[in-house]
Amino acid sequence: SPASVDRMASIRTGTKDIENHHKVRLRRNVIIALCQIQKEEAEGPGFSEFKSMSEALCIPDTWPAGSLPGAHLFVGLWKAEVLKEDMGLFRDPGGCWTLGFYKSSTFLFCDRDCFVQLCNPHVATMKEDVLYHFNLSTGTHNFPEMFGNVKFVCVGGTPSRMQTFIRYLASELGLHRPGADYPNICEGTDRYAMFKVGPVLAISHGMGIPSIAIMLHELIKLLYHARCSGVTIIRIGTSGGIGLEPGSVVITQQAVDACFKPEFELVVLGKRVVRSTDLDEQLVRDLVQCSADLSEFPIVMGNTMCTLDFYEGQGRLDGALCSYTEKDKQDYLQAAYMSGIRNIEMESLVFAAMCRACDLRAAVVCVTLLDRLKGDQISSPHEVLDEYQQRPQRLVGHFIKKCLGVV
Amino acid sequence: SPASVDRMASIRTGTKDIENHHKVRLRRNVIIALCQIQKEEAEGPGFSEFKSMSEALCIPDTWPAGSLPGAHLFVGLWKAEVLKEDMGLFRDPGGCWTLGFYKSSTFLFCDRDCFVQLCNPHVATMKEDVLYHFNLSTGTHNFPEMFGNVKFVCVGGTPSRMQTFIRYLASELGLHRPGADYPNICEGTDRYAMFKVGPVLAISHGMGIPSIAIMLHELIKLLYHARCSGVTIIRIGTSGGIGLEPGSVVITQQAVDACFKPEFELVVLGKRVVRSTDLDEQLVRDLVQCSADLSEFPIVMGNTMCTLDFYEGQGRLDGALCSYTEKDKQDYLQAAYMSGIRNIEMESLVFAAMCRACDLRAAVVCVTLLDRLKGDQISSPHEVLDEYQQRPQRLVGHFIKKCLGVV
Repeated sequence: SPASVDRMASIRTGTKDIENHHKVRLRRNVIIALCQIQKEEAEGPGFSEFKSMSEALCIPDTWPAGSLPGAHLFVGLWKAEVLKEDMGLFRDPGGCWTLGFYKSSTFLFCDRDCFVQLCNPHVATMKEDVLYHFNLSTGTHNFPEMFGNVKFVCVGGTPSRMQTFIRYLASELGLHRPGADYPNICEGTDRYAMFKVGPVLAISHGMGIPSIAIMLHELIKLLYHARCSGVTIIRIGTSGGIGLEPGSVVITQQAVDACFKPEFELVVLGKRVVRSTDLDEQLVRDLVQCSADLSEFPIVMGNTMCTLDFYEGQGRLDGALCSYTEKDKQDYLQAAYMSGIRNIEMESLVFAAMCRACDLRAAVVCVTLLDRLKGDQISSPHEVLDEYQQRPQRLVGHFIKKCLGVV
Repeated sequence: SPASVDRMASIRTGTKDIENHHKVRLRRNVIIALCQIQKEEAEGPGFSEFKSMSEALCIPDTWPAGSLPGAHLFVGLWKAEVLKEDMGLFRDPGGCWTLGFYKSSTFLFCDRDCFVQLCNPHVATMKEDVLYHFNLSTGTHNFPEMFGNVKFVCVGGTPSRMQTFIRYLASELGLHRPGADYPNICEGTDRYAMFKVGPVLAISHGMGIPSIAIMLHELIKLLYHARCSGVTIIRIGTSGGIGLEPGSVVITQQAVDACFKPEFELVVLGKRVVRSTDLDEQLVRDLVQCSADLSEFPIVMGNTMCTLDFYEGQGRLDGALCSYTEKDKQDYLQAAYMSGIRNIEMESLVFAAMCRACDLRAAVVCVTLLDRLKGDQISSPHEVLDEYQQRPQRLVGHFIKKCLGVV
């Protein structure tokens, strides 16, 4: 769709001069992948930037490698066989960059700025980087080879949910081969579980801000070491809803803390640091569009409150500790609702803050398992909860298919 | 040993009038288990209270049931067969209280005050309590039958470590039967894993304060519903050391936050609440004595810093984000050392605060995997780290054996 193509244009450049695409410098060590854009896509709304860039570059129907002056150019023309292989894995004969091609009618343009970057100058100086909680290390694993083609990362609480998601996606993307298994890439540890199919990586993050933060530190380093570019990361989770029918899916506009503020606070070297938790607005719109395409379950955009505790921290009356009344709880949840909060979970705040700091396009898509205005206990039957938990997976699966042009 | 017997005396009474044991009222609904105390134990230091109580009660060599006026009395004489069965499971014919007997030379005395209590009046009014993250419910599981005899709960980060621990303990306590398996009691969820042998329950808690807090809320409710009494809970974990040889085991005197304060802060209904994180001093001494008995690895008592983040939150230079220098980091860790901190982990603060609030005897025993003054990466070989992780298990295993009189 025009919207998603426009979206890709701005990921690809990743620069501040979106308005001046034609001025983007092409040089050695810049990886470019180009395919022609279909005419009808070029005419959609918001597509002018992309169009002008392609015009500026005078992209012909078929690109020969290295045909652009000063550019280190690789061209992949999508073929059905390639898609079946591994979504198009290309290798620079002189280096180890990998790149995925997904459709003849889209192109990926990446300059240095849109490779995954760290906000830490120390890592580049390290000889080896042990990602302890993943049981992976740059000294023992070839990250570019294992992960270089990753374009989508989906994260969620539990290992089993992530494995289910990868199986589902493999089938949806036509990448499933009979008898294929999706082994846990983080074998040898049970801190996290990681699965991969084509350009999609799925990782469990456990529960709560500290648990997902450890995972994100190591994931972002993994993507950096693997020299990934143009990565989108989406949390697909469960949550408690406020004033919503159970099973509703909330696409987070803003992650807020237990005082309803869009701020993530952490203590660094004994001092409090506050970070912004803004998420990508265009990605929210794209996901909403996907849910409209599907039209399978109720969906809302809203703010997501992220707490450090599931019981007292979310005003529940059924924890081991509770020193307030039903009325106190209702007042708090009503105030949350009035401030624009539609669901409550335990990871979005640091997820938004870290992805933003590292310039990763990020979204949070959570299903609500209950309406907190009506109760605290999650007592729906197992089958019902199971079906609820598949909803964010179906939505994000559709989004990925759309981005890859396989819808 | 006299120390551990004295220790048991104060758990058993669980009242404020430790000095007046002989005045403890014996009434119906008070569960008492008595066995004779060996003479040599009675003569050890710090044993006088216990001795005077037993003297006051005129405990004979062998107790017939119900022989104490006004008391609802159950007596179990330890037998090898009973130990092999399930560490002595006794049932009140008129109720469902269960009680474990471990040794003819120790006794358990429990009045109402030492049953596990909640700090939440709402739970008692609930018809059913669904412990969602355990996939257990009072409506579908018989908690007193499943867990009523639990006296020791050991918690640690990962499912595999907890299963290893239960296997180890089964063998150490002579409770292992050939071919016996220790299935995950929380089957149907992969949020947490729970294992049990005899009076010992082991549960994984994931990483970080929110993750262990959810587990503790549900664990304390489980112990309450199961009507457990005299429970000791120990976290056996991994940590980063400060100024210690890797592999050293730290027994936590005080859990402190990233500003070195012994306080756990959480937000309840949008307001900040601060709780004390004091741990049981006598239990620390008992564990130190156990490590002296074993004499297998270096052990220290010290404060444990608990942070919300593993990378920036602990002054690491190797995360995805880092905006400080090696010197800033060293200054921070040195200041931590000077304040009495010997290791850093991510759970002790809320563990200490919640156990204290619910009057559970609690301790934190963590091995250090590296010396943070010398580096940030955990890069020791797998086998070395594996052996380190067994150290808290061996120490706590010895402690439990000693309490049960099987050493």
